[in-house]
Amino acid sequence: MVTSKLQFEKNHLEENPLTSEGLYPDPEKLLENDSIRLDILKKLVGQSIVSVDQFDRELVLETCKFAALLEATEIASCHPLDGKIVITAFFEASTRTRLSFESAVLRLDGKIISIPTGMVTGIAKGESLSDIGEMFNAYGDLVVVRHTETGSVQEIMQNLRLPLINAGNGSGEHPTQALADWFAILKWKPKLKGNTVPPKYQIHLGILGTPGSMRAVNSFLRMSLLFKPGIRKISIVSEMADPLGPELEELLINSGIKYQLTNDINDVLSDLDVIYMNSIAFLGDSYKTLDSRYKLDADSNLKPDAVVLHPLARLDELDPTLDHTHHNLYFTQAHGAVFVRQALMIAILNRFDRLPKNDIPLSN
Amino acid sequence: MVTSKLQFEKNHLEENPLTSEGLYPDPEKLLENDSIRLDILKKLVGQSIVSVDQFDRELVLETCKFAALLEATEIASCHPLDGKIVITAFFEASTRTRLSFESAVLRLDGKIISIPTGMVTGIAKGESLSDIGEMFNAYGDLVVVRHTETGSVQEIMQNLRLPLINAGNGSGEHPTQALADWFAILKWKPKLKGNTVPPKYQIHLGILGTPGSMRAVNSFLRMSLLFKPGIRKISIVSEMADPLGPELEELLINSGIKYQLTNDINDVLSDLDVIYMNSIAFLGDSYKTLDSRYKLDADSNLKPDAVVLHPLARLDELDPTLDHTHHNLYFTQAHGAVFVRQALMIAILNRFDRLPKNDIPLSN
Amino acid sequence: MVTSKLQFEKNHLEENPLTSEGLYPDPEKLLENDSIRLDILKKLVGQSIVSVDQFDRELVLETCKFAALLEATEIASCHPLDGKIVITAFFEASTRTRLSFESAVLRLDGKIISIPTGMVTGIAKGESLSDIGEMFNAYGDLVVVRHTETGSVQEIMQNLRLPLINAGNGSGEHPTQALADWFAILKWKPKLKGNTVPPKYQIHLGILGTPGSMRAVNSFLRMSLLFKPGIRKISIVSEMADPLGPELEELLINSGIKYQLTNDINDVLSDLDVIYMNSIAFLGDSYKTLDSRYKLDADSNLKPDAVVLHPLARLDELDPTLDHTHHNLYFTQAHGAVFVRQALMIAILNRFDRLPKNDIPLSN
Repeated sequence: MVTSKLQFEKNHLEENPLTSEGLYPDPEKLLENDSIRLDILKKLVGQSIVSVDQFDRELVLETCKFAALLEATEIASCHPLDGKIVITAFFEASTRTRLSFESAVLRLDGKIISIPTGMVTGIAKGESLSDIGEMFNAYGDLVVVRHTETGSVQEIMQNLRLPLINAGNGSGEHPTQALADWFAILKWKPKLKGNTVPPKYQIHLGILGTPGSMRAVNSFLRMSLLFKPGIRKISIVSEMADPLGPELEELLINSGIKYQLTNDINDVLSDLDVIYMNSIAFLGDSYKTLDSRYKLDADSNLKPDAVVLHPLARLDELDPTLDHTHHNLYFTQAHGAVFVRQALMIAILNRFDRLPKNDIPLSN
Repeated sequence: MVTSKLQFEKNHLEENPLTSEGLYPDPEKLLENDSIRLDILKKLVGQSIVSVDQFDRELVLETCKFAALLEATEIASCHPLDGKIVITAFFEASTRTRLSFESAVLRLDGKIISIPTGMVTGIAKGESLSDIGEMFNAYGDLVVVRHTETGSVQEIMQNLRLPLINAGNGSGEHPTQALADWFAILKWKPKLKGNTVPPKYQIHLGILGTPGSMRAVNSFLRMSLLFKPGIRKISIVSEMADPLGPELEELLINSGIKYQLTNDINDVLSDLDVIYMNSIAFLGDSYKTLDSRYKLDADSNLKPDAVVLHPLARLDELDPTLDHTHHNLYFTQAHGAVFVRQALMIAILNRFDRLPKNDIPLSN
Repeated sequence: MVTSKLQFEKNHLEENPLTSEGLYPDPEKLLENDSIRLDILKKLVGQSIVSVDQFDRELVLETCKFAALLEATEIASCHPLDGKIVITAFFEASTRTRLSFESAVLRLDGKIISIPTGMVTGIAKGESLSDIGEMFNAYGDLVVVRHTETGSVQEIMQNLRLPLINAGNGSGEHPTQALADWFAILKWKPKLKGNTVPPKYQIHLGILGTPGSMRAVNSFLRMSLLFKPGIRKISIVSEMADPLGPELEELLINSGIKYQLTNDINDVLSDLDVIYMNSIAFLGDSYKTLDSRYKLDADSNLKPDAVVLHPLARLDELDPTLDHTHHNLYFTQAHGAVFVRQALMIAILNRFDRLPKNDIPLSN
């Protein structure tokens, strides 16, 4: 039943080997005939990463190419974050994202101070976020923050003199997730990185979810607009009447990319090349499930070559029967997040000098 | 009152010096006239440790001898776990066991990513254990898992491609605790390691607790059966009508070891050489105390040479008046757990090559 | 409005540069024409730090001078705590203090095992503190403990054979906070370290808070008594009828320092040189705010040169309008805590030999 659908072109199969856990495209494909431009990456030195809006396509590409290099080579032995302390401050608890950042740091020989479950004391709850930001100045070199409130990151940054990475702020943004999403897509189809993309390689991008209410989907959509040359159309499938809100709608219109809104998945599913799904909308200290009636499984009417992305954790909207198929790009997406975060942290902390000069394709 | 009971043979005293914290037998006694067989230990390379049933006596012995070497020498300076990340995933919180593993790793220069109090978010609670296992693949090199549910470990292993150590699964097993238990016993009486043990060294082993409901006791009993040559009799003192359940009962019968069930501690106490006690039975997210009416203190009618084991934490079944007597082997048992876990992790991650070749009795 | 008050002597300004975050006095001023006496600091080797009463002025001074050295130089590259494990056991959760200790350890290349939110299991809650102390023996080299109960530290130390640092025990003491407080004051006015202090440099010290109920204020007051030569007067402003209790009252009387108790801040505010404030009194698992009606902001009637200390976290008793003024010594106080803790830990663990001999003013 599952295998009957796997009618791939030979070409595609060669580029994207299927393991028992889904597609694992070779990160080196993203580096072929290409060098990593340090002059671009160095724009990140000392910067905080708050929103996708800080990125242009060039910066996304160089970050992803650098992540591909980190995935393909043994850089850890160079200890690029030696002596650096990263504070992982998860005021909204998230085991998955926290572990991803902490693993990224430890593999590069950095150190971690962790707030795994928020400020747990009553006093701490009464403390202002700007005081907490001031506190961080004394304790580390970089702060990774997740918080239930959208305005939290700006408040923390008021007194903060360290760079910060926004790992999810309420219903706001989740920019490193968007980088991990596009890192997976670019490894899968490196041709999408070009300034011009031949029509036959252009993708129809489907979003099952509500960008205006879901931070990961919001950031993904914003970053997708940067890849206009490779996008034939964007379809947003949501049970909400207005899934975008005015700001995202204006961005979409101004992008000039053809798009469609619908609440019927059957309108578009069989034509989608890339399907991004999510069912979690964060609401203060809690969350609710949205769009969870759009379920995918191995029987869904997918194009043979279609790939599925999901920021995880999943509930039942994404069935495990898809895990062992060519449609599963979500495990690659999750694994690649570690390398994207490593790339960002090496760049922000300007530790390019720790990398082995001769072995890697860095250009100045 | 306490000291009046301490009538030890000279021989015994020399082998097992009493400190103010109880017995501290010399780990080197376990290595005397013996080398550690690497060919046996290497059976652990890449393996998950789920159940005591994976061990035969030979493997327990070589693990304990390797642990003795780690306890007796300064191995840490060799950084045997350098560059390795161990994930300590305590879905059931346990400060004591978590710290034991984390100390073991850090002393060997490994790194730790920790889930100290389970998946704390609502979303995470809805996530499947097999997805969590898949997540771990990207973040570490070895996973230590404790969970409230007996079936949890198997579910996590479905998608896990890293080795896992079961640090307690519901009412199931706790194999590294059993190794720590027997490590203490073997240091105390190295003669028990032989294929034949003269009758005068054979022990009467008493278990105050319910093996069928308590994971630590379950694993201890299973491992004890491997040491048949040194065991004269096993007595199980429990307030339950059927403290074993059918599987353990069959194992005991098949072992051919003489055994007795009773609910009256006075039937056997004065004849026991080794007393293993526990009063905690885990029940999902909670626990209940069982057999806590079997209390031991310095006035209990113990044989002069008898030693007491307890997996700790203790409530009031084991009185602190025993702490400063020769009967206290439980502190040695707790301290030795660190070295047993180090031995397992070096073996699983195949880092024997980091150990100093010339100074240690490793044979191939 | 704020700046109109900043009428500093030229001299004072030169010594204490104002940054956008308040005063940042140069730590090197504390070392000028002075060497650090190792013979004094070595009194700390292997010691637990439980109470301010263990310190005389000489030991406070040498600890602060050593902290100043750590703040002014790049010691981290010497890895002074290499191979040492510090257990941060916060049975009362405190993100701020825990992170301060953990950052201190990691910067010196030590390792951390953490209990961030107390013993979270039901079983653990039934475990005795002396058993927990015994447990620590096997896992680390130094224990940092915070607990809701005043008697906790003594109970843990019953079986503990490692040195311990009291990071706050109920309504008892918080000695490393007091060291951080005086480290800030001494950097601000190094002349206060002398055996004789000319009257024009002596300070009127105001305490807005209740020393008898607040551990940080208690420890600060005890340590202040050691600096009698530099103290003109101590004024305690509290809403409690008896803010000291009999023990502190006797200490104050015996010190021979002139002091005053009042519940009207206006009695003394305009004459104070150093103002120490706090509004948190810990009560078992909870806390209450005391003295929070004594608020300070940029409009308060402060002497032009007055500095404000606060152990943080603050609620609304200390207004952020003071943050960017010369009165703000509290951020320096918070940052300096890291170096004070480093100084203590290097001394307790006797790792002076790891420091670069030629570059630093250590005398024997």
